[in-house]
Amino acid sequence: MRTHYCGTVDSQLLGQEVTLCGWVNRRRDHGGVIFVDLRDREGLVQVVFDPDAPEIFAIAERIRSEYVLQVRGRVRARPEGTVNPDLRTGAIEVLGLELTVLNASETPPFQLDEDDVGEETRLRYRYVDLRRPMMQTRLKMRAQITGVMRRFLEDQGFLDIETPMLTKATPEGARDYLVPSRTHPGSFFALPQSPQLFKQLLMMSGLDRYYQIVRCFRDEDLRADRQPEFTQLDIETSFMDEEGIMGLMEAMVRELFAQVLEEPLHSPFERMTYAEAMHRFGSDKPDLRIPLELVDLTDVMAPVEFKVFSGPAQDPQGRVAALRLPKGGELSRKDIDDYTAYVSRYGARGLAYIKVNDLNAGREGLQSPILKFLPDTVVVDILDRTGAEDGDLIFFGADKAKIVNESLGALRVKLGHDRGLVDRGWRPLWVIDFPMFEFDDKDQRWVALHHPFTAPRLQDGQTLDGDPGALVSRAYDLVLNGTEVGGGSIRIHQTALQERVFELLGIGQEEAREKFGFLLDALKLGCPPHGGIAFGLDRLVMLMTGAQSIRDVMAFPKTQTAACPLTQAPAQVSEAQLKELNIRKRS
Amino acid sequence: MRTHYCGTVDSQLLGQEVTLCGWVNRRRDHGGVIFVDLRDREGLVQVVFDPDAPEIFAIAERIRSEYVLQVRGRVRARPEGTVNPDLRTGAIEVLGLELTVLNASETPPFQLDEDDVGEETRLRYRYVDLRRPMMQTRLKMRAQITGVMRRFLEDQGFLDIETPMLTKATPEGARDYLVPSRTHPGSFFALPQSPQLFKQLLMMSGLDRYYQIVRCFRDEDLRADRQPEFTQLDIETSFMDEEGIMGLMEAMVRELFAQVLEEPLHSPFERMTYAEAMHRFGSDKPDLRIPLELVDLTDVMAPVEFKVFSGPAQDPQGRVAALRLPKGGELSRKDIDDYTAYVSRYGARGLAYIKVNDLNAGREGLQSPILKFLPDTVVVDILDRTGAEDGDLIFFGADKAKIVNESLGALRVKLGHDRGLVDRGWRPLWVIDFPMFEFDDKDQRWVALHHPFTAPRLQDGQTLDGDPGALVSRAYDLVLNGTEVGGGSIRIHQTALQERVFELLGIGQEEAREKFGFLLDALKLGCPPHGGIAFGLDRLVMLMTGAQSIRDVMAFPKTQTAACPLTQAPAQVSEAQLKELNIRKRS
Repeated sequence: MRTHYCGTVDSQLLGQEVTLCGWVNRRRDHGGVIFVDLRDREGLVQVVFDPDAPEIFAIAERIRSEYVLQVRGRVRARPEGTVNPDLRTGAIEVLGLELTVLNASETPPFQLDEDDVGEETRLRYRYVDLRRPMMQTRLKMRAQITGVMRRFLEDQGFLDIETPMLTKATPEGARDYLVPSRTHPGSFFALPQSPQLFKQLLMMSGLDRYYQIVRCFRDEDLRADRQPEFTQLDIETSFMDEEGIMGLMEAMVRELFAQVLEEPLHSPFERMTYAEAMHRFGSDKPDLRIPLELVDLTDVMAPVEFKVFSGPAQDPQGRVAALRLPKGGELSRKDIDDYTAYVSRYGARGLAYIKVNDLNAGREGLQSPILKFLPDTVVVDILDRTGAEDGDLIFFGADKAKIVNESLGALRVKLGHDRGLVDRGWRPLWVIDFPMFEFDDKDQRWVALHHPFTAPRLQDGQTLDGDPGALVSRAYDLVLNGTEVGGGSIRIHQTALQERVFELLGIGQEEAREKFGFLLDALKLGCPPHGGIAFGLDRLVMLMTGAQSIRDVMAFPKTQTAACPLTQAPAQVSEAQLKELNIRKRS
Repeated sequence: MRTHYCGTVDSQLLGQEVTLCGWVNRRRDHGGVIFVDLRDREGLVQVVFDPDAPEIFAIAERIRSEYVLQVRGRVRARPEGTVNPDLRTGAIEVLGLELTVLNASETPPFQLDEDDVGEETRLRYRYVDLRRPMMQTRLKMRAQITGVMRRFLEDQGFLDIETPMLTKATPEGARDYLVPSRTHPGSFFALPQSPQLFKQLLMMSGLDRYYQIVRCFRDEDLRADRQPEFTQLDIETSFMDEEGIMGLMEAMVRELFAQVLEEPLHSPFERMTYAEAMHRFGSDKPDLRIPLELVDLTDVMAPVEFKVFSGPAQDPQGRVAALRLPKGGELSRKDIDDYTAYVSRYGARGLAYIKVNDLNAGREGLQSPILKFLPDTVVVDILDRTGAEDGDLIFFGADKAKIVNESLGALRVKLGHDRGLVDRGWRPLWVIDFPMFEFDDKDQRWVALHHPFTAPRLQDGQTLDGDPGALVSRAYDLVLNGTEVGGGSIRIHQTALQERVFELLGIGQEEAREKFGFLLDALKLGCPPHGGIAFGLDRLVMLMTGAQSIRDVMAFPKTQTAACPLTQAPAQVSEAQLKELNIRKRS
């Protein structure tokens, strides 16, 4: 029905006839002539209808925005002074010789170039929203990204293998989406939170290298930028250690950035232990573009009389740290109040600070409500360790280490953005040597920091019998500009070790058998050493396209209440359907 | 951890050291030496352990089938007379210099070369079953097939776009799998039976060319070779008519067969109308490799007195047809009884026949219980039309056309296989000009033969106001050796036409609004002409790999009762989970 995409008609076609199909982006009458910007996936082209051809002109007079047209016409140069150098088609226009209205359109609910349309409306009329060039670019780039990933992995011998969507409930994870079974009354499938166990089973099946771009499901409250269904690039390989896997994945990510964004990433990626990341940035996914760092003051503050500092400093679970903001002296009282409110979201009970006005003036040159509680030696240590200069401001955090890290870690990022301190470019980072377990204060038990199938990093002769909190795992996360885009590990491939880890997690033998019996069986029947990784595709695409939300890189996302304003899902179903599934609603 | 795959070590590596990882396929002791066939994804290699190296030999003595080993060794030629020309590695062996047992294995539940293992056991220990070379080949070929599809479509400008899995119940389809919504109590998502409406919405979004390899779900009774979740190659394009789409899809399928099987398919594919297919083969998916055809006798039988034939022949819904089996005179009475039982499954109340012993002998040369009911002229017509020869057998069907077509159509295929009449090779066929609607006798209403969004093929000025049964759609099915592997159509892109089709299907305005309101809205806001197709990936892979069941081309299929013997899904869930989802079980 067409010879070219609208957006690709350029001076090379001068004098030729083309047939185009597309949407009316805008129609305007000027000097007795009708101009139509015709739009398709590839861009816009200007089509001109002349009154010399009255039949066509009459049709052209009736067309409105978003009408779907087929136009046959001749490519000609635009008159001098009307050339648009920003468009590939900007030097030409198409003189309409034949015009067919393929479909009319009512007035759309919003204009494509409107930028303050509410999200509910955008999602309800998603088919209009997706016509915006920006949305088209994002979905095109997403397809390009998955294409590059697939080609890279296939070249490396990875096999695209599908795993079930109707599967067993995930223990130890987020809330599952359940699917009632009709043929097994009273039983339920769960939609997968990830294909973790299946990909491990594929390694036990000898398939050696597996990948899949796969939908995953979590029925969580959609605070932050989460979606009930999201997509993972899921990878597993046998007979390869963490160095091998990280190296291969780095190569893939570099290929991705080179091909899709034409941005070379430095090689190798930086690496940092979990402990260092928490110490320096208060986060296991530090954004290295922000040049601010936490400075530890726990030892300095331990002896002071001021309990706000010495209490946490003397608590084995506590931490006292500072964050120096260069030129932070400019901050107003209100700014500081706002930041205090901000860190309170992370549990911080205050945000002490010192303004450094004049280092040479001693205490007189400092301004701070807490100064009077700190002896001179401590003040000197603080200024020394933070490397403070005139005009700086030093924030303090003193609490349980978790709270200090989360609040100062978040403050660091916020200050970076607010104060224009974020470097340009990409700063990929591997975070390694995660703790195996963390203690859940609420449930008073150890939980797996990654998942219960992650292998511990044991030194020669080391067992799992010591302090669980001191054990380090063979896990690795890939962090990009402060966002975790991938995470993986070497898995446990031995029955005894897996049973011991279940035990440490408080999963009894019977429960382990019930939930993971098939895994324990499989470990006994020739399980190879293996490991893998999963990338959050939506987040990675969001970062690479510069979108602000993963909803902007999905064709049909759900709202924050997990609904679809377009199709009105979820919806009521008939009583007969529920009866067949052996369930009923609770009233 | 390795330098090569086991299966790739060949004479080019003679004299070199290699490190291999894999499974013990078999260990045997011979002449004081231990031979291990080590297996990985790429095949087997023979490893030899010599008593000259006692430490390694001692380890080698303990290994058993399915142990996982790492072996460093030197490649050397096999002794004369022990070369195995069937294996890539058959000219060499690896002398073991270092041996690590990466994991032990208990005795596996079945041997990999056992071929009468029950399916329940195979699925329960799927990770052992998948180690069989045949299963590995199938999954590898499946990955290769999807890879070729993706590259072809991406080269043609198709964008891989994901559509939701948590969506709205499908009206007019098979039974849905439902997912209770936690955040919208009493409401349910449905898992998609296909992304049909979403792909149409993507065309309305101006994305122009879409594809996706996507999981679909149908909660049907799993007779035949069906699975609750299956995979579709789903395609949609704008501004292209059926010729364009069929041409492109033919090119893709040819590419697939050329690249994966190195089998050129003839071009263009054959085409046949639905009417011709039913008339000649009693099926809308005829296997053209079978040279048998139905011969219509309705007009011939109308005047006979024998009611068994004249009744259906005079019924406007009836049909009388014959199926000639060359050399069918060889069939025994028992054979014919068996075929009579076979057609009874399709509703046929009997299976009349004539054995043609000697054409020159007139009636005396024929043998048949029904001969006495047929006048000479009719017998002559039968022999004439069927082209009977001495030694043939002619079967008859007389009933409602639907029953005759189904029973003789099935008999045709069965005879073809039983009698060795199936030609080798691939016979792709487009079936076109399907009826828009068929009358559902049970519900006494018209139903869509494809789906309610399929466009009718209207001649100039033709409307939908005539006999619905006479309307032909713009649908096309791709049939391969008697299996429907793909089906698609040009869709309705105009509101009025879509509303009229809903009306003919007995879907009232209110119901249409409730179920398809978003589609009707979208049709009014600039919907382009569009169409598409979907391929059943599992079936296509099954055909291409020569597997007997789609279960053999899926990594983790379900049983006939939609259960997974490996993970024991579906399973019981806690009362707390159900409460959160606002549902309860029926007792």
